[in-house]
Amino acid sequence: MHNDLVAALDIGGTKIAGALVDGHGTIAVRAQRPTPAKEDGETVMRAVEEVVQELAASPSWGRVSALGIGSAGPVDASAGTVSPVNVPGWRGYPLVRRVREATGGLPVELIGDGVAITAAEHWQGAAQGHENALCMVVSTGVGGGLVLGGRLHPGPTGNAGHIGHISVDLDGDLCPCGSRGCVERIASGPNIARRALDAGWRPGPDGDTSAAAVAAAAREGDPVAVASFERAARALAAGIAATATLVEIDIAVIGGGVGKAGDVLFTPLRKALADYATLSFVRRLTVAPARMGTDAGLVGAAAAALAGRTGVAAAGV
Amino acid sequence: MHNDLVAALDIGGTKIAGALVDGHGTIAVRAQRPTPAKEDGETVMRAVEEVVQELAASPSWGRVSALGIGSAGPVDASAGTVSPVNVPGWRGYPLVRRVREATGGLPVELIGDGVAITAAEHWQGAAQGHENALCMVVSTGVGGGLVLGGRLHPGPTGNAGHIGHISVDLDGDLCPCGSRGCVERIASGPNIARRALDAGWRPGPDGDTSAAAVAAAAREGDPVAVASFERAARALAAGIAATATLVEIDIAVIGGGVGKAGDVLFTPLRKALADYATLSFVRRLTVAPARMGTDAGLVGAAAAALAGRTGVAAAGV
Repeated sequence: MHNDLVAALDIGGTKIAGALVDGHGTIAVRAQRPTPAKEDGETVMRAVEEVVQELAASPSWGRVSALGIGSAGPVDASAGTVSPVNVPGWRGYPLVRRVREATGGLPVELIGDGVAITAAEHWQGAAQGHENALCMVVSTGVGGGLVLGGRLHPGPTGNAGHIGHISVDLDGDLCPCGSRGCVERIASGPNIARRALDAGWRPGPDGDTSAAAVAAAAREGDPVAVASFERAARALAAGIAATATLVEIDIAVIGGGVGKAGDVLFTPLRKALADYATLSFVRRLTVAPARMGTDAGLVGAAAAALAGRTGVAAAGV
Repeated sequence: MHNDLVAALDIGGTKIAGALVDGHGTIAVRAQRPTPAKEDGETVMRAVEEVVQELAASPSWGRVSALGIGSAGPVDASAGTVSPVNVPGWRGYPLVRRVREATGGLPVELIGDGVAITAAEHWQGAAQGHENALCMVVSTGVGGGLVLGGRLHPGPTGNAGHIGHISVDLDGDLCPCGSRGCVERIASGPNIARRALDAGWRPGPDGDTSAAAVAAAAREGDPVAVASFERAARALAAGIAATATLVEIDIAVIGGGVGKAGDVLFTPLRKALADYATLSFVRRLTVAPARMGTDAGLVGAAAAALAGRTGVAAAGV
């Protein structure tokens, strides 16, 4: 298996990235296009086809045995369709069939982007060697995926691990998803910044009101900035504890922009986790920052292609 | 497989039930002892041994190929030990080894009682034919278990599906488990009754202040009783929606005393579920009352023994 290649696509609202990836997770060939997210569905698909064609022009293409797609969600892996929130031209779009046609008939595996990140962290990153893990991206939104019993658990539609939209505050603020008190509504970067601003925090001379700026202020001891991160940490802790209590994970890996805040996030998060993860079988739970960089989506899509192709836990996924 | 038998033990704080069960889930032979829950660990174990001996005296015992235990939790299936909250004499008690010795060396499978109920509902009850299900017991406490990808998901320690102790109200009341705003803290029978009493509901001449009495009052339109069930329904809905969002279940089965309240519970529950289960991949989620009766624990323990013995999804579990 380690001698041949798979192709990977990482499809988001900003860019469509493609790569050929070997059995060790090393990226051999890359291609990329901006996502024409505001255009009609066929225009978006043409950008995907251009990425595939550029990969297919590589002399290594002949060794490619499968293709994995990690896509912004929701996806429907059972139907082979995607409906990314930020790509309105694609609603129930038959991406798997279209990509299969563009590749001349390769087997295609589709998973959500949170699941793809998880596959990458489990294969090569902070969740490596863990039989049961939750991997999260905390940035503009909050996404995630699960490894259960040593294998990726995408769920029947490829969306499992969607921790950003579980409610940890049943009477809380309305979330754009329609529910209330979702983890994302409290812990995403924009919500960390909004809460700090509402409570009186003011940006520096550069006018930067991002969560990263709030994190910088928190590191310098600004109490309002600290409090906003503590609140995010409590919501993340309640969500992570709920996941552990439901499916027995032993590690939660946190990536994305907010995950990069470091101790400003992880110190109150570990403290809050002790408050919410109380049952004997979840007390050993640890949290760790993500280790994969911006290629996580591609590496995870490749892992899904390898696993799907063999029908077993290929590449440790 | 359908020609031979397994033995099953259902160990709770009140009784220790045992049975011989065939490959169709039919109970052939029964034995039972009260649980001497306040006594020392060896005294409790003697009651278990008496149940096993009574089963072993059956002429069918020679066809028994394995034994399954569903025990009040927490359990630790990986260590083979149990620490039931209501049996203080057992803390990290090596139940699997002791039962194996009492049976002369049969293979023994241990799962938590919520997982056992789930195995039973999936094999014979309301979750039959569902690939991904949450089964719950809502009574004095709130427990549960998961079926994922067509198979029971006990998790590494046998406690997965512990929905009673996920927080749906991160600033809520302290729960005896140490966390806050747990589903059980809001939706269990005693909490339904307490909330109704606190809000001014008064029992009838019989003085019955159980959740069943509150349910009877709610059926007659008492607004305080109705409101207490609605609050329980919201907490259950938030927890069920969280589970579906995390692992993609398509049915939640609810048993136990509170589950028997009927429309008083299920009508507001279905309404609240529409509020919390909002993402495309969880909208098809349904809730249904449990179908298995008081033998669910025994039948589920038998299912675990059948599945464990063959190493595959025996008996549909």
